[in-house]
Amino acid sequence: MKIYEKTAEDSGTRARLGKITTRHGVVETPVFMPVGTAGTVKSLPQHLLEELGVQILLGNTYHLYLRPGPEVVRDLGGLHGFMAWAGAILTDSGGYQVFSHQDLRRIREEGVRFRSHIDGSSHLLTPEKAIDIQHALGSDIAMVLDDCTPYPSTWEKTRQSLELSARWARRCREALPPDQGGPSLFGIVQGGMYPDLRQASLERTLEAGDFEGYALGGFSVGEPKDLMRDLVSRMAPQLPEDKPRYLMGVGTPLDLVEGVCCGIDMFDCVMPTRNARNGCLFTSRGKVIIKNSRYLRDDSPLDPECGCRVCRRYSKAYLRHLFMSREILSAVLNTYHNIHFYLDIMRKIRQCIRLNHLADFLKSLRGVYGEDASLPPGGGDS
Amino acid sequence: MKIYEKTAEDSGTRARLGKITTRHGVVETPVFMPVGTAGTVKSLPQHLLEELGVQILLGNTYHLYLRPGPEVVRDLGGLHGFMAWAGAILTDSGGYQVFSHQDLRRIREEGVRFRSHIDGSSHLLTPEKAIDIQHALGSDIAMVLDDCTPYPSTWEKTRQSLELSARWARRCREALPPDQGGPSLFGIVQGGMYPDLRQASLERTLEAGDFEGYALGGFSVGEPKDLMRDLVSRMAPQLPEDKPRYLMGVGTPLDLVEGVCCGIDMFDCVMPTRNARNGCLFTSRGKVIIKNSRYLRDDSPLDPECGCRVCRRYSKAYLRHLFMSREILSAVLNTYHNIHFYLDIMRKIRQCIRLNHLADFLKSLRGVYGEDASLPPGGGDS
Repeated sequence: MKIYEKTAEDSGTRARLGKITTRHGVVETPVFMPVGTAGTVKSLPQHLLEELGVQILLGNTYHLYLRPGPEVVRDLGGLHGFMAWAGAILTDSGGYQVFSHQDLRRIREEGVRFRSHIDGSSHLLTPEKAIDIQHALGSDIAMVLDDCTPYPSTWEKTRQSLELSARWARRCREALPPDQGGPSLFGIVQGGMYPDLRQASLERTLEAGDFEGYALGGFSVGEPKDLMRDLVSRMAPQLPEDKPRYLMGVGTPLDLVEGVCCGIDMFDCVMPTRNARNGCLFTSRGKVIIKNSRYLRDDSPLDPECGCRVCRRYSKAYLRHLFMSREILSAVLNTYHNIHFYLDIMRKIRQCIRLNHLADFLKSLRGVYGEDASLPPGGGDS
Repeated sequence: MKIYEKTAEDSGTRARLGKITTRHGVVETPVFMPVGTAGTVKSLPQHLLEELGVQILLGNTYHLYLRPGPEVVRDLGGLHGFMAWAGAILTDSGGYQVFSHQDLRRIREEGVRFRSHIDGSSHLLTPEKAIDIQHALGSDIAMVLDDCTPYPSTWEKTRQSLELSARWARRCREALPPDQGGPSLFGIVQGGMYPDLRQASLERTLEAGDFEGYALGGFSVGEPKDLMRDLVSRMAPQLPEDKPRYLMGVGTPLDLVEGVCCGIDMFDCVMPTRNARNGCLFTSRGKVIIKNSRYLRDDSPLDPECGCRVCRRYSKAYLRHLFMSREILSAVLNTYHNIHFYLDIMRKIRQCIRLNHLADFLKSLRGVYGEDASLPPGGGDS
């Protein structure tokens, strides 16, 4: 089934405005998906997500599989019923989390065996099982199980890995045939940091089956920014034009705009949520590290240009106090603001595409969020 | 200045309906004050407190004195400006927290010397300083510094303590004379669990000065419920009729109704907030320990008779999952519900007084929340 419709293009870049139709509403793209690891965007009640304008959430299959378990979630109405969220949900395959706990897992053709980080129990995740779980979760968009190579990896290891990923992608598509009323399924292009292997992975993934959308995986794993930028700009335009293009686990505010300029439609990243809990806040003037003592008596809003609840009501001094006192409200308010900032960037991006101004917006954001090596990698769970 | 106006009485009990006028609005009584220890009712954004109908918060002088410090709070517009809260605020004197860290403090006539639980630094809290701090915090209702005897304490020790408290009360009143535009000041009756000493403390406190309201302190310190009940029912009616009567650090839902029936107008307690974070939820059918495995697949609301956001939207299974996964949202939703439950009890109490039905309400609540030794003592900070 065709789920993507392009509605406009930016003349100065490869950016596209569009719509993704899901079983839980239409998602305007380019879109940023907040990460709701274990059935919650950490610290935020669902009505505040609605207020923020969140259209689609990402759920982590690994976490929900281990707790409370896919059968429980299925019996409670899928993830939508379970967490009382009426909007769209994309689930990852669980692979990324399994691969990030390297010492706890073992890869075979069949799938990957891993140990739970909760109780040490042993589990086998196969492509078919990844699909079953995502089906039970009631996901709107499921992802194929893939093998994600760490950075750096050798050419040969990366080649073997992408071939395995392609075989797994085929098995996923077979386990979840199109147009059967189940979730949409996205293929994932891997290939590490080797342009030729990225190209090979694209071909293998296209051969593996007809997917409703395509993702670029394996970025934000510690590689230099330039490498990612170069590869995304090569690969994104080659992803099928009539389907959504998703850059997984990325990224900084600047990464989002740059990705959109290459033709990317979808993003997810833990950066706004995790950084919020660590007191790192995004503003129109750059990052604010809220624990800085200079904010002790600062009665000004976090971001004077931001219209969110937090900036309209609270001072930097109060936000600093909450953070220093390790108050739960610190996480709530910081997360609310950072999600607002990310969604606001996406709203601006969409408006800029409509008005053919995206290149200007990119330029202005580069002034504020240009090269910044201090940001941690953003993949994984929130 | 007279701040209290009685507007109705229940014919079957000593309960009174009334209004307390503060510099930040009128508070309908009987009222429950959620505890906002360090400038936040733990986990809840202020707009949700407003939504819940919170009229007055309690702030802990001890915590705010240590962090961020009274001068900082004063410079940022007092506690109201600092935490962006337009409603009324009552502050305790700091004494209770100091006395609960017994190994860190030393009492003299002058005041109490204590060590910070944050950095071990040494501080002297005198009656005058307790007033200064509460003044700097911009409190609407300040409390006198008192010495709170632990349970059990000897008669002689309790007698000496109440005499000291009365002398401190006088010094507080002298430091904060009435009708000077500062906070209202409440006296506190101590006397431990000895009826004759409670009586003596009442006399000393009335002699110590003319206060805008009177509190019963030193309860919820681990004593048997019957003892508290007996003493509150003896003492509450003797507190001045034309002033607010405040039962400090109490209590369970049943304690609130029983207190009101004795003529109490104001309550505070960490129970709804602290228990929420520990997964203990109050409902119309009694307490729910949300981690119980029986709720794993329970898709029903926490309390089918509750109209709060949490009960309207989420299932017990989801609330259990959040608690088991130690998600921040668990604290947020549980706290929201428990505060709603407490404020709803107070709304029902006020309505029952209007309709002369309070005795019936007390009876029905006894059926659900009768003797319950499993609840922990509720004083202190949230």
